[in-house]
Amino acid sequence: MDLKVYCDRLSQPSRAILIFCKANGAEFEEVKIELGKGQHRSPQYAAEVNPMKQVPAIVQGDFKLFESHAILIYLASTIPGVADHWYPTDICQRAKVHSVLDWHHSNLRRGSVGFLFNTVFSVAFGLPGDPKAAAEGEKLLSASLATIESFWLQEDGLFLLGNSKPTIADLALVCEVTQLEAADENDRDRILSPHTRILKWVEDVKNITAPHFEEIHATIYSAREHLKKLKAQAVHKSE
Amino acid sequence: MDLKVYCDRLSQPSRAILIFCKANGAEFEEVKIELGKGQHRSPQYAAEVNPMKQVPAIVQGDFKLFESHAILIYLASTIPGVADHWYPTDICQRAKVHSVLDWHHSNLRRGSVGFLFNTVFSVAFGLPGDPKAAAEGEKLLSASLATIESFWLQEDGLFLLGNSKPTIADLALVCEVTQLEAADENDRDRILSPHTRILKWVEDVKNITAPHFEEIHATIYSAREHLKKLKAQAVHKSE
Repeated sequence: MDLKVYCDRLSQPSRAILIFCKANGAEFEEVKIELGKGQHRSPQYAAEVNPMKQVPAIVQGDFKLFESHAILIYLASTIPGVADHWYPTDICQRAKVHSVLDWHHSNLRRGSVGFLFNTVFSVAFGLPGDPKAAAEGEKLLSASLATIESFWLQEDGLFLLGNSKPTIADLALVCEVTQLEAADENDRDRILSPHTRILKWVEDVKNITAPHFEEIHATIYSAREHLKKLKAQAVHKSE
Repeated sequence: MDLKVYCDRLSQPSRAILIFCKANGAEFEEVKIELGKGQHRSPQYAAEVNPMKQVPAIVQGDFKLFESHAILIYLASTIPGVADHWYPTDICQRAKVHSVLDWHHSNLRRGSVGFLFNTVFSVAFGLPGDPKAAAEGEKLLSASLATIESFWLQEDGLFLLGNSKPTIADLALVCEVTQLEAADENDRDRILSPHTRILKWVEDVKNITAPHFEEIHATIYSAREHLKKLKAQAVHKSE
C-alpha cells in the first residue's frame, strides 16, 4: 500500500522521517504541510490525517500514525530491507534505543523546542517570545547536549550507545540538534561550540545518510535569514 | 538472571512497572529508593544503577535500563508468559501503543508533573512551588484528560485504543492519573470529576490487575495527608 508522509522540512522530526525513508529506499509520497501557513490546523488534516494537528504523520492504506518515534519504529519494521542496525532485533539493544528516544522527549527535545520557539519560531506565528521560557529552554538544551557527550556517545563507536552504525535514535536526536540552524548565529555558536563531540556526531550522521541529509536540510539551512527578517519586522512594528 | 526493580511507590512510573511485574507473575526484587530522602541522587545509585539519578530503573545481570516506557516494553518482551495484549506483536497495533506512550511524554505526564510538583511535591523537597508553572501544568493536564476521553478511549472497548484488554500504555497513563491522589482533594475533584470516562477506565485497570493495583497504590493513597501536613508546616514557618 502507498505510504504517505505528511511533513514540513522545517520540523526536526519530519526531517528525521524523510531521511530515514530516503536512506532506506522506501517508496513514499511526501505531502507538504506548511506549518507557517497553519495547514496542520485545518479541520481536513485533523479529520483525515492527524487529530493532534501536528506533523509528521503517516498514512498507509487505512492505517494512520502520528508521533515521530512511533513512526520511525513502524517504518524500520515495515520498509523492505531495512538494515538491522537502525532498529536492532536484539531485545537488549532495542531496549537501549527506546531508552534514548524516551529520554529525548523530556530533555533534548523539550529544551530545544523551548529555546527555539521563544527566540525565533514565535515570530513566524506572530507571537511574542517569552524570554524566561527561552532561558529555561537553553539551560535544558545545554544540559542535554552535555549528557549526550558524556553518556550517550560512548568512547567507542561513532554513534549513540557506542554503535558503529546509526539507529533511528541517532536520526531523531541529530535532527533536533540541526534545528539550531534556525537560531541566530551567536546563539547557535554559544550553545553548540563547546560540544565538539556533538559536532562530529552530526557530521558522521550526515555522511552515512548522504546525500539525503543535506537535501532534506536545505530548508532549515535557508530558514535563518527568513526568520531574522521576520523578527526585524516584528521589532520595527512594535517600536 | 535476577531482575531488580529500583523504585519508589510514590513515583507513578515506578508503580506502573511494579504492577506490570506482579500482574504477570515476574520473579523480581523490589529495591526501594526513597525520593524524599534523596537516595536517587547518591553517587552509588548513579554509578551502579541509573546515571540520570531517577527512578524507576532495572538491573538484570549486566544489563541496566532506565526510562519507564522502555522498561515496560523490555519486561513485556522478556518476562515468561506475558499475554500478547500487553504489548501486541502485530506491527500496527504495536505502533499505536508506541504512539500513545510518546504522546504521554509531552502531554499527560508533562501536565501532571508540572501541576503536582508545584502544588504538593515541592514542599517535600523544601522548595517553593511556582504558581504560574502549576497553572500551566493544570491546563495541559486537563487538556490531556479531555484528549484521552475524546480520542484515546474509543467507543468500543474498556481500554485505550478501543481494546478489550489493557496494554502497557494503559498502565503507564492510569498510574499518572492516580498520582492526583497526592493532590489536595479540592484540586483533585476539580480536575478529575468532569472526566467520568477516565474514572471508569481507572477502575477497569484496577479491576483487571487486582489485587496488585491497590496494594502498590497504598503508598500514594496515604501520601496526601502527609504532604498536607508538610505544606501546613512550610506555610507556618514562612509566616
